[in-house]
Amino acid sequence: MRKIAILGSTGSIGTQTLDVVRANGDLQVTGISAGKNIQKMEEQVREFHPRLAAVWSEEAAKELAVKIADTSTKVVSGMDGLLELASMQESEILVTAIVGMIGVRPTIEAVRAGKDIALANKETLVTAGHLIMPMAEKYHVRILPVDSEHSAVFQALNGEDRKRIHNLWITASGGPFRGRKTEELRNVTVEDTLKHPNWVMGRKITVDSATLVNKGLEVMEAKWLFGVELDQIQVIVQPQSVIHSMVEFEDGAVIAQLGTPDMRLPIQYALYYPNRRYLDGERLNFAKLGTLTFEEPDTETFLGLPMAVQALRIGGSMPTVFNAANEKAVAKFLGGEIGFLDIYDIIGQSMENHRVVKSPSLEEILETEQETYQWIESRW
Amino acid sequence: MRKIAILGSTGSIGTQTLDVVRANGDLQVTGISAGKNIQKMEEQVREFHPRLAAVWSEEAAKELAVKIADTSTKVVSGMDGLLELASMQESEILVTAIVGMIGVRPTIEAVRAGKDIALANKETLVTAGHLIMPMAEKYHVRILPVDSEHSAVFQALNGEDRKRIHNLWITASGGPFRGRKTEELRNVTVEDTLKHPNWVMGRKITVDSATLVNKGLEVMEAKWLFGVELDQIQVIVQPQSVIHSMVEFEDGAVIAQLGTPDMRLPIQYALYYPNRRYLDGERLNFAKLGTLTFEEPDTETFLGLPMAVQALRIGGSMPTVFNAANEKAVAKFLGGEIGFLDIYDIIGQSMENHRVVKSPSLEEILETEQETYQWIESRW
Repeated sequence: MRKIAILGSTGSIGTQTLDVVRANGDLQVTGISAGKNIQKMEEQVREFHPRLAAVWSEEAAKELAVKIADTSTKVVSGMDGLLELASMQESEILVTAIVGMIGVRPTIEAVRAGKDIALANKETLVTAGHLIMPMAEKYHVRILPVDSEHSAVFQALNGEDRKRIHNLWITASGGPFRGRKTEELRNVTVEDTLKHPNWVMGRKITVDSATLVNKGLEVMEAKWLFGVELDQIQVIVQPQSVIHSMVEFEDGAVIAQLGTPDMRLPIQYALYYPNRRYLDGERLNFAKLGTLTFEEPDTETFLGLPMAVQALRIGGSMPTVFNAANEKAVAKFLGGEIGFLDIYDIIGQSMENHRVVKSPSLEEILETEQETYQWIESRW
Repeated sequence: MRKIAILGSTGSIGTQTLDVVRANGDLQVTGISAGKNIQKMEEQVREFHPRLAAVWSEEAAKELAVKIADTSTKVVSGMDGLLELASMQESEILVTAIVGMIGVRPTIEAVRAGKDIALANKETLVTAGHLIMPMAEKYHVRILPVDSEHSAVFQALNGEDRKRIHNLWITASGGPFRGRKTEELRNVTVEDTLKHPNWVMGRKITVDSATLVNKGLEVMEAKWLFGVELDQIQVIVQPQSVIHSMVEFEDGAVIAQLGTPDMRLPIQYALYYPNRRYLDGERLNFAKLGTLTFEEPDTETFLGLPMAVQALRIGGSMPTVFNAANEKAVAKFLGGEIGFLDIYDIIGQSMENHRVVKSPSLEEILETEQETYQWIESRW
């Protein structure tokens, strides 16, 4: 029985993790967490019988406690609740499916408690990779990527010596606006932006795909996850999203992982690594597929990628600024306050305004995030 | 120092194996062999200082012995010479780069002597897979594929549990006549046939690519090499020959190996397996590549593939008949005696005429080959 706790069990990755649990007899959910979606939490408690249910909002936690008073599940709340969930004794693996910086502290707590991490929280490595990776090594904890691109690289590296990596080829769909130029992006609507060509995902990550910020964050994560240099990470647009990413080795061989767009695959792979299990779902049909294409990303139009590369090159607290500024900007865009291109402006100006802290502590990272938020709020 | 003997050192794979030796400081050639190309043999003896040089023709062997009398290389000849080369005490690995059934007996001898096999001789597994594979297991010998397709599968399987294989996807270029129909093949010339779109190879294998017999032989080999059922082997045409083959696992993940067409890569991979080494050469450039396409093989026109599948399904001595009939037919085609489509006729009629031996011994395999040759000679 593999025992897992899920940070963010009501979101897209969280519910798909529970789909994987449902399909396999030997996974046990020890804990779940959500922001305030009490109704879904109650359903999950009744189906999966976790020992802990962590709710961010104290008020919602109280409500849930009443609703599930007839079960043996204990309700906890706030950051203390998340930390308790992250380090609960009986769990072996923490799925960090929560979105945002809120996931960083519980992830660190889980690593310290010796839990393997099935990593879906982007912010963890983007902002604190320099803290997390050495800590994971120290506590002999495995960081198992859940993102489809990083899982593809991880699968391609199975059985291989990482010292023989020449390049990672991170694939990108190019998003809904692939082929457009800057002027054509000035007036795109939220609705246009949310039409991802291949994947059904949350709203924030769908906007990030359109700006290529998401790809930039993935480049940052890949650097930490696989211990490569920034120059070893190539981004290539593969609009059909069939090749999920590739590794090029020193001998010129390229190993790629391909599949249909189904997040349950990387989730299941992380939970059972290095083993594979049957997974029901659509299979690739190459003859039907017909064509795969590749093109360079348009980094003159989609500034998310070059800005991320710049932030990573500067390092220290700059990736935190990049991420926080984007988070704020996307919220404003989704709220109708700003246009699409303003997202780049906000990120760029926030980075320009920031005074870099070289090797920030967790506290400094969180401070940087708050400062970035405040600076943006004071100006837009 | 990794010590290798090469069966067939003057051919395409043999000379490329020596290129790999030349580029790496820790490979030592203990023995070489050729049919009768004495000039090349002498050059190889002087450059690589093998202890043994096996020449098939006794006359040529005597000639070589005179030419290299000033060296310490011993010249041997005939089948005895090949067997001595295959089992020489100091070598660890035998590269079977020889073409034809002549390679089977030395390969068996090498397995018995505990040598790993870098397998480039197709006939070995096609005709005697049922003998070789159990023997390799018994003597703890590794059969390391050198063919680009099988090497791709082998690379994709690195670190994976073979029990989790769902399908192998063997890719095919489709050959120079892809897209043509039977009537359009009636009058193709030898010259047309030798224009392979992507790979520079020997004449016989280039014709086999055009008929899809080569792909059929690869399907047979794949079955033995990877222990899968015939129904688990899919052939897909990938005209750019960039994806060298793929493995689909039970979870739906597909792992593919891609590269430029360079046989030194699979040769080097086999020699250092499971390690990779730097290899100079052209790299894949995905943006420049632009497009990869896939299509079903046209098995109504290119009968080499369905005939091979049929031979494999019947089993026993039938794959030997398929292979021997093809060998003879291709020789006649290259000699201008028959047309392109006659190759299929000769194979088909030879198979029809054959009375299957269920689990043939090596002697029965060799007899079947001779009988097939004689039957064809008596009729065409």
